[in-house]
This record gives sequence, structure tokens and C-alpha cells, in this order.
Amino acid sequence: MKLGTVAHEGVEKPVAVIDDDTLLDLRAAGLDIRDMVQLVEMGEAGLEAVRDALANPQFGATLGMTDVEMRVPIRPVQYRDCLVFETHLKNCFVAMEKVTGRSHEIPPVWYDQPIYYKGNRLSFIGDGQDVRWPNYAEFLDLELELAIIIGKRGTDIPANEAPGYIWGYTILNDMTARDAQMVEMAGQLGPAKGKDFDTGNILGPWIVTADEIGHPAALDMEVRVNGTRWGGGNSAQMHHSFADIIAHISRSETLYPGEVIGSGTVGTGCGLELGKRLEPGDRFELEVEKIGVLRNRIVR
Amino acid sequence: MKLGTVAHEGVEKPVAVIDDDTLLDLRAAGLDIRDMVQLVEMGEAGLEAVRDALANPQFGATLGMTDVEMRVPIRPVQYRDCLVFETHLKNCFVAMEKVTGRSHEIPPVWYDQPIYYKGNRLSFIGDGQDVRWPNYAEFLDLELELAIIIGKRGTDIPANEAPGYIWGYTILNDMTARDAQMVEMAGQLGPAKGKDFDTGNILGPWIVTADEIGHPAALDMEVRVNGTRWGGGNSAQMHHSFADIIAHISRSETLYPGEVIGSGTVGTGCGLELGKRLEPGDRFELEVEKIGVLRNRIVR
Repeated sequence: MKLGTVAHEGVEKPVAVIDDDTLLDLRAAGLDIRDMVQLVEMGEAGLEAVRDALANPQFGATLGMTDVEMRVPIRPVQYRDCLVFETHLKNCFVAMEKVTGRSHEIPPVWYDQPIYYKGNRLSFIGDGQDVRWPNYAEFLDLELELAIIIGKRGTDIPANEAPGYIWGYTILNDMTARDAQMVEMAGQLGPAKGKDFDTGNILGPWIVTADEIGHPAALDMEVRVNGTRWGGGNSAQMHHSFADIIAHISRSETLYPGEVIGSGTVGTGCGLELGKRLEPGDRFELEVEKIGVLRNRIVR
Repeated sequence: MKLGTVAHEGVEKPVAVIDDDTLLDLRAAGLDIRDMVQLVEMGEAGLEAVRDALANPQFGATLGMTDVEMRVPIRPVQYRDCLVFETHLKNCFVAMEKVTGRSHEIPPVWYDQPIYYKGNRLSFIGDGQDVRWPNYAEFLDLELELAIIIGKRGTDIPANEAPGYIWGYTILNDMTARDAQMVEMAGQLGPAKGKDFDTGNILGPWIVTADEIGHPAALDMEVRVNGTRWGGGNSAQMHHSFADIIAHISRSETLYPGEVIGSGTVGTGCGLELGKRLEPGDRFELEVEKIGVLRNRIVR
């Protein structure tokens, strides 16, 4: 199933996809949910209710795609982003060496455990919404990632059980102000203003439920800017799988339904690796197999 | 005013302090609020309603301190933690040099802007609740900090207006698994499992409203373990004030009511600086002038 959130007549509505032109308004179809987080919290019973509603769409509960605008499919309860594609990191180090003159090597810990930071959960937008260029930055970049939504509460989750905690998958564009990031990361606490600004985190267009993806996810990924391919890869290239990531994060730490975890950028999935940077007005398309195309424009 | 959250007869209740022995149950006193976040969202009108209720405590709306247990005074909408005490950083570098053999210097960016990371907003406990030793760590530490609660929504907040966005102050104990932190921070994305585990973030005992603190906050701070003083200082030693921190974070990034921002550890406010580490069963008291004493025990 494909699930998401749209704006319709000024109201945000959780929906399921019936076909390319038609959506099912989940509340109008009888689900007593405030938003997508609440559907996730319902667990398997919630998905079963959506399946039933999709099997017999009620009269008056459908929406035409042309009558809605897309919104972020889920407002994350919490948001972590990893860094598990080796090619991305190697390419970034080569690019940074050109700037700093110092050579960088992947630290051994990167191979031993998933490295991640937590980002601003309140600055997300969805497909088709404009990214606003932050006023403190000149070097804007995008990052093509795969993200998961945690489906149930768990602590000390064994890796072999972890796939059962994944509710769904979506595309993540982790917009980055490279100049701010490079300055602040010398402070050793990771990215802050380099990653977090209003409209700087994008999810969508849809969440595809985990049953349609399989584990570990092996999905082709590609990023295009103004119609031209920049780069891409496959999520099977993750050095740490989402199962290993969930097992690592959940050690003595509870994960809750509605938390979002990003994979980190796929190799060649950002401009920094490729010697490219965004310009105001650029339109980008992030495509991930089985999920769709996440389209946004950046405005200054 | 002192505000907080207690558990009473199995229910979490937002309260205001009447005196050392007596609390006002804000909902029983007529405030239509779900929790402390919702009181913050009401802004000045909410504080005015509490003031009115405190002026004439209704019969049946009071609770005895002996009948309640403390809980985290507010569940943060989002949580950032800074690093703005120079003495703390210098002392930590000296301690780390003993371990790594490499000398560390404060990077210039630290003086130019507040450095911060985002922590797990869902792992907080309150005064009197036990910290559970994370099962992956051996070297546990505490950190004595001052924290603010953001009171109203704002973006690009000028530093001179920023004090008006502070709703209140409370004590923060940023429990840290030093061994996990030192390993993962080589990955360059900041602390993760080193800071984030269930019960590893502590706020309390009370939130003191900003009108009682003044700006910039100049409050004596002290940490004691098992009754013995470890260290302390004064929040006036912050190299970047909370006003500067709010101005920096809010650049092109919206701050919302109920977000929590920590100062970072006051100089000599943690064991790493002092060559000390916690043992199971240790009891710690973090005292900040005008706010109170935040007491917890760590159990394994």
C-alpha cells in the first residue's frame, strides 16, 4: 500500500493511494485517526482497516489527485539520519580535501557501527512544496536517501527481529547548507544549521508499507536536477542494513511508532560528491524504485 | 512561579507550587490543559490563569507533596543541547589527552557561534526517578546544566528580543556514557548512544518562569554525588548567552513553544573533567540557585 498526507480544502488529510488519479480519504472512509502518526500507532490493525477500506472504497471518501496538494506523509515523532554508504563518504572526503588541503580517511568506527545524528523533526515538507533557501548560506545541496518509519515500540531489538519494526519506506531529501555545515562541524557535535532550516527536510511522496519492499531493501535510487541525471545507486549498498541500524539505536533506548530514520546519502547522491551546487529555481527529482519520485524546487 | 508535572494516583498532572508542602493541580483548578506543553502554548494567557488560580487556590485543587511523585516537568517538543562553557571544554580536552595521547584545542568556531546537537526528546525523566545504567556502557557520567523552555513561536529572532522567547528555566542533567561517546564521535556526526538512552536525560525538579530569573541568567550551580561536592560554577560564565543561542538557532529555522535547549555543562560540572566516574547506586544532587535541587540515583 501507498499512504501519505495531502492538503484538501485547507485541511491535512491522511490518505491511501487507489490509483494514479484517485486517493482514499482515510478519515472519510471511517478511520478514527488524527494523522499518519496515529495510523502507525494502531499497528497491524490500522493497516488492516486501510486494506478493508481500499477493497470497497466508500462513496464520497475518494479524492482526485488534481484536487489536492501533497504534504509531508508523516510528521516524524523523532528524526535520526545515518551515514552508511561508503561511496558517499569517500567521495565527500575527496571533495573536502580540495577545500581543506587535508586528507580524510574513513574512521574504523564507521565500519563497526552505524553513525548517525538527530535532525529537526519540525522542519519537514512534502512533495511539490518549495524549499526556501536559508538566508545564512550560499552553498546549497540535496541528498538522496531512503528512510524508514518505525512501526512499533521496542527496546534492545535483536537485528533478526528488527525488520518487523519497519512500518514503511519513503524517500528522504536531506537538504544541506554545505558552507554552514563545514564551519560548524569543526565544533565536533555534528551538523546543526548545516542540516536544519525550515523546509530543509523532505519526505515523500508516499510511504510504501514494508510488506511491498522486503528486507534488506534493494531499491534503485536516482537524483535528477532540472531533468539531468546527477547520480544514484541502490539501497543494497548500505554498509549497515536498517535492521542493524534499529538494533544499534535501540540498545537501552526505546524506539516509538512514528520515528523516522534516514539511510544517509547514496553514493553520488549529492552535489558535493560531484562538484555541483544548487542554484535558486533548480528543480530536483529524487526517484526510488517502488516508492516514486519526490519533486521539489528551491527558491530564494 | 514554579511549575512542574507530578504523578498522582497513577495520573500525570501539571502543577504549580504553592509552598514546600503543597501543590496546585492546574486541571482541577480549572485550566483546560492536557500537559505542560499545552500550558506553554497558551503563552501569557496561560501564565495569567495560573497566577489567578494560585491567588485563590480552589478547595479540592491542592495536592500534598507527600502524596505525589515527581515527573519530568515538560516533555520536550524538541531538544537541543549546547556547549558554551569554556572551562568545561578545556577540562575535557585535558582529560581526553590522557586517554588519546593527542592534544586538543578549542576550534575558533566555538568562540564564533554556539555549538549544539539535538538529543532524544523521548528519553527524559524527572526528579527522584532512577537512571538505568545502559547495558552497553561502563563509564557513566553526569553533566550539570541549565536549560530553557521556549515560550513562543519565532523565526530569525534578533538577540535583543530573544529573552522574550524564554518561558522558563530548569535544571538539566545530561547523563553520558563516556565510553560510547568517545567511540562514536570519531564518526564526526556528534554524540548518539553516548547521550541517548532511556532515563539518560533529566529535567527538574521545577520550571521557574523567566520573570523570576532575569537575563542573562546568573545562577550559582553545584553538583554533589553521595553528599560530596564535585564541582560547579555560575551560568553567567556561558560564553554565548541564551539570547545569542536563540538568535543563532532560529536563523531561517522556526522555534516552537515547548522546545528545550540546554546550556552545556558548567565548568567542573561533570566527572570527566575531575577524573571521576559514577558507580551503580550513586546518588547525585544538581543544585541551581532559584530553581532547586534535582536528585536522582543510578541503578544497574
